[in-house]
Amino acid sequence: MFEVRDLDLSARIGRIRTNHGEIETPAFLPVIHPVKQSIHPELIKKMGFDAVMTNSYITLKRYGDTAIERGIHSIIDFDGAVMTDSGGYQVLEYGDVDTNPLEVANFQESIKSDFAIILDRPTGVKSNWDDAEQSVIKTLESCKLTLDNLEERHSIWIGPVQGGRHLDLVNLSARKVSEMDFDMFALGSPTEVMERYDFALLAEMIIAAKNSLPVEKPFHLFGLGHPLPLSLAVALGCDTFDSASYMLYARNNRYMTENGTKRIDDLEYLPCACRMCSLHSIEDIRTMEPDEKETTIAMHNLYMLKKEVEATKQAIREGRLWEYVGVRARAHPNLWAAFEIMAKNSSLFESYTPSFKSKGLMLSSYPDNLRPEITRYSNRIIEYLNSIRDRPLLIIPEGYTKPFLSSSLFDKSIKELIDSQPITIGYISMGLGFVPGELSDIYPLSQIVATKSLESDPRIVDDTMIKLKRQMDALAPTKRFLVEDRRLADGVRSLLRNVVNPYLTFSLKSGRELSDHLVTIKSSL
Amino acid sequence: MFEVRDLDLSARIGRIRTNHGEIETPAFLPVIHPVKQSIHPELIKKMGFDAVMTNSYITLKRYGDTAIERGIHSIIDFDGAVMTDSGGYQVLEYGDVDTNPLEVANFQESIKSDFAIILDRPTGVKSNWDDAEQSVIKTLESCKLTLDNLEERHSIWIGPVQGGRHLDLVNLSARKVSEMDFDMFALGSPTEVMERYDFALLAEMIIAAKNSLPVEKPFHLFGLGHPLPLSLAVALGCDTFDSASYMLYARNNRYMTENGTKRIDDLEYLPCACRMCSLHSIEDIRTMEPDEKETTIAMHNLYMLKKEVEATKQAIREGRLWEYVGVRARAHPNLWAAFEIMAKNSSLFESYTPSFKSKGLMLSSYPDNLRPEITRYSNRIIEYLNSIRDRPLLIIPEGYTKPFLSSSLFDKSIKELIDSQPITIGYISMGLGFVPGELSDIYPLSQIVATKSLESDPRIVDDTMIKLKRQMDALAPTKRFLVEDRRLADGVRSLLRNVVNPYLTFSLKSGRELSDHLVTIKSSL
Repeated sequence: MFEVRDLDLSARIGRIRTNHGEIETPAFLPVIHPVKQSIHPELIKKMGFDAVMTNSYITLKRYGDTAIERGIHSIIDFDGAVMTDSGGYQVLEYGDVDTNPLEVANFQESIKSDFAIILDRPTGVKSNWDDAEQSVIKTLESCKLTLDNLEERHSIWIGPVQGGRHLDLVNLSARKVSEMDFDMFALGSPTEVMERYDFALLAEMIIAAKNSLPVEKPFHLFGLGHPLPLSLAVALGCDTFDSASYMLYARNNRYMTENGTKRIDDLEYLPCACRMCSLHSIEDIRTMEPDEKETTIAMHNLYMLKKEVEATKQAIREGRLWEYVGVRARAHPNLWAAFEIMAKNSSLFESYTPSFKSKGLMLSSYPDNLRPEITRYSNRIIEYLNSIRDRPLLIIPEGYTKPFLSSSLFDKSIKELIDSQPITIGYISMGLGFVPGELSDIYPLSQIVATKSLESDPRIVDDTMIKLKRQMDALAPTKRFLVEDRRLADGVRSLLRNVVNPYLTFSLKSGRELSDHLVTIKSSL
Repeated sequence: MFEVRDLDLSARIGRIRTNHGEIETPAFLPVIHPVKQSIHPELIKKMGFDAVMTNSYITLKRYGDTAIERGIHSIIDFDGAVMTDSGGYQVLEYGDVDTNPLEVANFQESIKSDFAIILDRPTGVKSNWDDAEQSVIKTLESCKLTLDNLEERHSIWIGPVQGGRHLDLVNLSARKVSEMDFDMFALGSPTEVMERYDFALLAEMIIAAKNSLPVEKPFHLFGLGHPLPLSLAVALGCDTFDSASYMLYARNNRYMTENGTKRIDDLEYLPCACRMCSLHSIEDIRTMEPDEKETTIAMHNLYMLKKEVEATKQAIREGRLWEYVGVRARAHPNLWAAFEIMAKNSSLFESYTPSFKSKGLMLSSYPDNLRPEITRYSNRIIEYLNSIRDRPLLIIPEGYTKPFLSSSLFDKSIKELIDSQPITIGYISMGLGFVPGELSDIYPLSQIVATKSLESDPRIVDDTMIKLKRQMDALAPTKRFLVEDRRLADGVRSLLRNVVNPYLTFSLKSGRELSDHLVTIKSSL
């Protein structure tokens, strides 16, 4: 039912087969109101949305048997895939709903929902641990009751994870629900968290849930309806999203941009080239009749969401999702905090991030140094260094012989040295530590584009020294020679000297001198 | 002729009155080829471009007297403002042109160019100092010759600054050209610099030029035709731009995005919602006939440029240009390096950046701490602290009493203390240093949204200690009391204790305890 084509970080481009066609993920499902929907679902499909979300509880209350006769696709007039929410959101908003899990579940099957959701008990963001635990328990009971008693089963059934801000409960909830026979999972009730711009908590909740769920099943995030955090959520492993925000925002004259939301009245310019914004000027929009204005802004908002999904998918294809999320994260300090959390959890993504990418790694500031490609290098290099241990070691300045093996300048003298006996030659790269020359032309080492100032970021210098120490232990060189990199700051050079602890240290004044040093080194071996 | 409406950093929104209407700046002027132009200039105007650039040298060679009879607006069929380049670019490309400065200048006047440019001698990016100096001298000669001998003068005359990567020459060139009777200035030959993605050098060149030019005249940047560095260039004080890149890129199937350029064949998705990209799918575009494909991509590229200009203007209006440039800068390590250069030159922007902004300051990572609003606080606070020197000082944890004056929790006990005698009470904020409580509710202090981890960035901690030391010197408190902020890292707290050097240090375990400490403090005063 779910086939994954591309991976980057915990993101994937995949296809879900439904009873109404295939949808490609990551996918945003606009919420369609079953009764009052201003933008026609057909237009939404034309804009490139192959699936939508609607509410089965409202449909049940409003249409009842008519919905069963006609089916949900006819009710909302949409021939793509339809996901139906169960009323859980209404529980959160109004305290309770006047139906029961099994009734709503059988109703969703009867109206031929493509994706059906258990009537859950969402955890409010302010819930204390005990209340949150209750919502987890009640949701699990609801899941069991439903799965055990479903009259028929053709839909893709989604198991909701609850627990709110209590990550231990999110984890527990995910573990328990993953033991049940669901086709897909979802993280419940993050809407309030997003409304508070608490993206760090959102990231932690997603990570806590994903950690206990089977990776081979798709994962839905309820209520994410803004371009700002979308790529981050995808990077953390969310496959589908739904929200009514495009309409709700429009109703309040709120206009989405990639970097946040603006009030139409605060805009003097339209920072957008979408169809609506190229057809209309800001004055046009401001002076429209309320209905037209609402629809125009809602269409713009949908274009923004669509664009963000497409750009995120393209970034996954290119292996540049890290970079893409980093750009978005710069737009708000709270999203940057979430990006830092993603960086700290980098090891979670290591196994999914491709080992080879056609595009280089871009490193601009601290969290970049924790990206999975770098972490992976740091982990794997130890084993390699172990395999070439107990040799003399010569460290030369980075860049002097890049690409190392085909370097024209030092080729001869270095080759002579290498040929004369086993010796390890390489350089020290800030962020990575020791790089053996023979690996320097290989991905990712050959393809790093970094801001120069990273070399003097104290946190990166510290990390490098820690890595270097481990690397020196693994290499256990018989004798150490250090040709100092004079471009490094004095403080950094002395730290390096401390960790490398060389037998002889050389200073390089011009390129030509290396060969002179090599003579000395050869004679001291 | 140039009227400025809004300022932020060194950016401005302004209006230039030309003989063919007013144009609002910042403005991007698409280059129109006088002979082979695939997108009709009328369409370009409809897209929202009120001015274009075309080439007077090619027009002279191709149309000669016909151009004088008809005028350039009729030749290229554009009724908005037209800027004409003089052939300087051709000098750079082909070594020389077969005309002279005065002929081209008089020709520009005769064809009724709205903006005319001196035939200059561009500095190649690889030029050594001596060659660069020659290009500066020759350009200045050309300027003098032209201005002294113009037959008529109705155009807005632009004086070009040369010097290339030699910043001392850029500075000299700007100083000399600013002494001449120009209406506007321009930075010559940065195209090659941008092609190399050397945005740091670009930033330095703009700063070097702007430093010696009168701020009240508009400033043009030749050849910037990509959304990526545009907002940065605007922030550094560039008002207008021109480029043929939208066409040239399209010719090579290169598709612009805010974060870089993609080859159409590498795209699997269209990460854009512009009119072209919502009308066509990527498959559509890939399989178009060459001409249609080129036009479609060129239109997309124009939409991207237009959008970037509008978004930049909106950011200036909101006082959020720093944030906007920061987002773009994340897209490439070299642009981040340029952003760091902008941060280091923050004092240049201090006087233009509004003293009050309706939106809060967003701080995510290191360079943000150098933004002009923060620098301004650091400079101005010293004077204020001087005015309240020689009092006892009480430092309490940040956030405990925010907003300070109306704080409900400590209001009473703190008020009592303040009423009993002159005393300075405030907190220490990472990045700012000491903040007197009475200023804490005032912009920008009341409106800072920061990523939490900034508090432990070693560079910010260091900066804070340096600022704090100066602040303590200015305050010269009679006695110092420190209630420690337990949320800070141990290392940071001990650094603070060192700099503050308190008479008494207290530890706060729960909010209630502050009032107990206040009793002790009162009795030790």
